[in-house]
Amino acid sequence: MILGVLGGMGPLAGAQFCARLTLLTPAARDQDHIPFLLWSDPSVPDRTAARLGTGPDPLPALLRGLRGLEAAGARAIVIPCNTAHGWFDAMQAACPLPILHIVDAAAVDLARQGVRPGRIGLLATEGTLAMRLYQERLQAAGWEVLVPPPGVMTGCVTPAIEAVKAGRPEASTARLAEAAAGLVAAGATAVVLGCTEIPLGLPEGAARAAVGVPVVDTIDALARAAIGWARPAV
Amino acid sequence: MILGVLGGMGPLAGAQFCARLTLLTPAARDQDHIPFLLWSDPSVPDRTAARLGTGPDPLPALLRGLRGLEAAGARAIVIPCNTAHGWFDAMQAACPLPILHIVDAAAVDLARQGVRPGRIGLLATEGTLAMRLYQERLQAAGWEVLVPPPGVMTGCVTPAIEAVKAGRPEASTARLAEAAAGLVAAGATAVVLGCTEIPLGLPEGAARAAVGVPVVDTIDALARAAIGWARPAV
Repeated sequence: MILGVLGGMGPLAGAQFCARLTLLTPAARDQDHIPFLLWSDPSVPDRTAARLGTGPDPLPALLRGLRGLEAAGARAIVIPCNTAHGWFDAMQAACPLPILHIVDAAAVDLARQGVRPGRIGLLATEGTLAMRLYQERLQAAGWEVLVPPPGVMTGCVTPAIEAVKAGRPEASTARLAEAAAGLVAAGATAVVLGCTEIPLGLPEGAARAAVGVPVVDTIDALARAAIGWARPAV
Repeated sequence: MILGVLGGMGPLAGAQFCARLTLLTPAARDQDHIPFLLWSDPSVPDRTAARLGTGPDPLPALLRGLRGLEAAGARAIVIPCNTAHGWFDAMQAACPLPILHIVDAAAVDLARQGVRPGRIGLLATEGTLAMRLYQERLQAAGWEVLVPPPGVMTGCVTPAIEAVKAGRPEASTARLAEAAAGLVAAGATAVVLGCTEIPLGLPEGAARAAVGVPVVDTIDALARAAIGWARPAV
């Protein structure tokens, strides 16, 4: 049962997903791990630009990757890019394999960490916010999603995501910590790192712990969902 | 020009290769990065066991991965596992794509770091040592390869590699530092981390710096070779 990973969005997030999938899988030796294929196509047009109307549609490139993974033997798909889930329905309609939704994985991780439905904070791309990906999928279950004000998006979150995509995750930590603190001050009882670049800029350790409320790392959440698919008994 | 990465040996080393490939590529945004496919098949039989005569031949699984990468569109191959290079000639004979050899990449990295031909130390699996992979490929160019004594292999290096494969890289650091110190004490002017699990156990930072001589990280060396293939002008 090979897992297909549609990555490259960005490429560091895709690689980190593979590392976390490996580290979170109970295993004593190579042969205990989950077989997977990572399709890392960084040429997929920028998802936020497409949503905001300033760039080309990424769907053809996304479907090309899904077809490649299916042809190579994958039996389920994960996509370690939150914003790409704005095209989830079109991808799932075109792909016969199950695609594990990253927002569902985040919701499962909120429950795993003991967070009760209520007010949560979301750090994500402008595209994910504009598409209301989290709001639409979570509100029926009783979640209220707080997002940073526009000035924090343009001054902190967006430049932090760009720094990770440029290979400088350490340059984004202070900005992400500031944005997370703003969400907590506004009443968030948990913060979802709802862009897979963000966990790289706010890695496990002092800066993430300083957020002071449970943090959902959507790379880890998606890795746990994939392990649940591949190893239902674990 | 898609790069094919034959990984899974171990899976954490393959994921780390993808992360380092990304971080070492000059890029400002996703679309500047190198497209690649990672075939992570952790079921490839253990390479050291095969070489020592205690396990099955990994070649059929290696060739299956190469065929899968070629079918999916790869145009060159890298294999982030030193020991698997014991089957390099058979793989290259069966695969029409160029395979970038990890020992050649290590030699280029020694030169990049200013190490002159002479006595170098090698930390690697029992299989890589038994096959004399480094000795045979480097001795004509004037390199003398020092390896740890048997007691250090069984007491430090082998258990350290096993800890990384079990998802506990931090448990291997002290053992690897001790083994590296022994090579330097024996006259090594550089230490090659000639197993792709080892850089994960001796990551960049204090423990690696304490080795006191140039260290060749074969994950990084292979990533630089791949970037040279994909971006010859860089």
